[in-house]
Amino acid sequence: MNMVILLPRDYADGDRVRLTGPRLDHVRSVLRARSGDELRVGLLNGSTGTGRIARLDDGALEMDVHLDGEPPASLPVTIVLALPRPKVMRRVLFSLTVMGVKRIILTNAARVEKSYWQTPFLHEDAVRRQLVRGLEQAGDTILPEVLLRPRFKPFVEDELEQLSTGTVRMVAHPDASRPCSSLQGEPATLAVGPEGGFVPYEIEKLLSLGFSAVTLGPRILNVETALASLIARTR
Amino acid sequence: MNMVILLPRDYADGDRVRLTGPRLDHVRSVLRARSGDELRVGLLNGSTGTGRIARLDDGALEMDVHLDGEPPASLPVTIVLALPRPKVMRRVLFSLTVMGVKRIILTNAARVEKSYWQTPFLHEDAVRRQLVRGLEQAGDTILPEVLLRPRFKPFVEDELEQLSTGTVRMVAHPDASRPCSSLQGEPATLAVGPEGGFVPYEIEKLLSLGFSAVTLGPRILNVETALASLIARTR
Repeated sequence: MNMVILLPRDYADGDRVRLTGPRLDHVRSVLRARSGDELRVGLLNGSTGTGRIARLDDGALEMDVHLDGEPPASLPVTIVLALPRPKVMRRVLFSLTVMGVKRIILTNAARVEKSYWQTPFLHEDAVRRQLVRGLEQAGDTILPEVLLRPRFKPFVEDELEQLSTGTVRMVAHPDASRPCSSLQGEPATLAVGPEGGFVPYEIEKLLSLGFSAVTLGPRILNVETALASLIARTR
Repeated sequence: MNMVILLPRDYADGDRVRLTGPRLDHVRSVLRARSGDELRVGLLNGSTGTGRIARLDDGALEMDVHLDGEPPASLPVTIVLALPRPKVMRRVLFSLTVMGVKRIILTNAARVEKSYWQTPFLHEDAVRRQLVRGLEQAGDTILPEVLLRPRFKPFVEDELEQLSTGTVRMVAHPDASRPCSSLQGEPATLAVGPEGGFVPYEIEKLLSLGFSAVTLGPRILNVETALASLIARTR
């Protein structure tokens, strides 16, 4: 945790915040902070700054916070990702947040196992926990938006065109021969399929919306590596 | 698993291989292959090709293999990484292998917890398992070399200069202002510190060997994201 994320309800009085629960535990036992120390803090969806510890014991962490900074710039990237298996999905939500992605769409695909949609890791609270962890790691405050689209066809036909208007549209596809170009900060919508890839019907659907199929090289990357590699090329 | 990695001892007779254990289980229960199917195979540190399944049951998987391909090109990159916590380290060995890195040096640093060096995940067999998993994912056969260097100072003073001769030397450092440049395939030695970064003494040591300190941007990346981001810039 490189930044403590504050919520409006943490404010006790004026600039004084009062934290209990996991954040208290983390600051005590992992950061091993003490009274008088300064921590980096950020208000969820707001400014960043520092908090000086006024009290830290079993019961609570109290800090006097001063917010005068802005979170780092967001990436102008929407990720469309075929739902990976639950453990991978959790880590992907974390790492996409760390990298600064602000819109993540988890969609179905022929090669997604139906059972993945039942995982408790998709519950709103569990998703939010990974996103907040990502913000705490990166020193960011802007919570990404996560959309679940358990039906591929209506999502692509009815929503995706509008969602991706004005952006470079690319889908990573092992069979493609065109290398993924460097985007230099252009807004982009990047689609990544399941292990085994999108099936031809799904690729056709995406191509018909103006997506180009791009290769990430001769290696078959796992989902996390493919995402990091694609995102690195957007800058 | 996108490729079954074969060992010389798997050869039963001529081009016929016979597999038992985890690879048999995986081919049966995850790939759900059947007799007559063709699988991608590769001989460890050798050629790639296909195996046609001649027998697949509780007792063994037998395939007739034909090796006529080459593994994908390796990345001319050495990673020097402060030992991360065990779970992260395992995943990093896997993902660096997927990305094609062939030399990984795990070293100590002031902010590495001493206990990390005791993890069973550092045992030779456990390390090799992650490397082979990475090869199976990527469709590669060339096993990376992993060096453990539990003492930072003698490693840097006595070994690192020679190991990195003729390569671009960079260390990712949050305080640096110089952005990480694109390497376009040049050989590189890339150093990444622990959570919290290398301490000033360690950075000085690396700078004195000709490393440049580079920033990966205003976000504080976790180890896995930092590595993927650095490596993406080597191409």
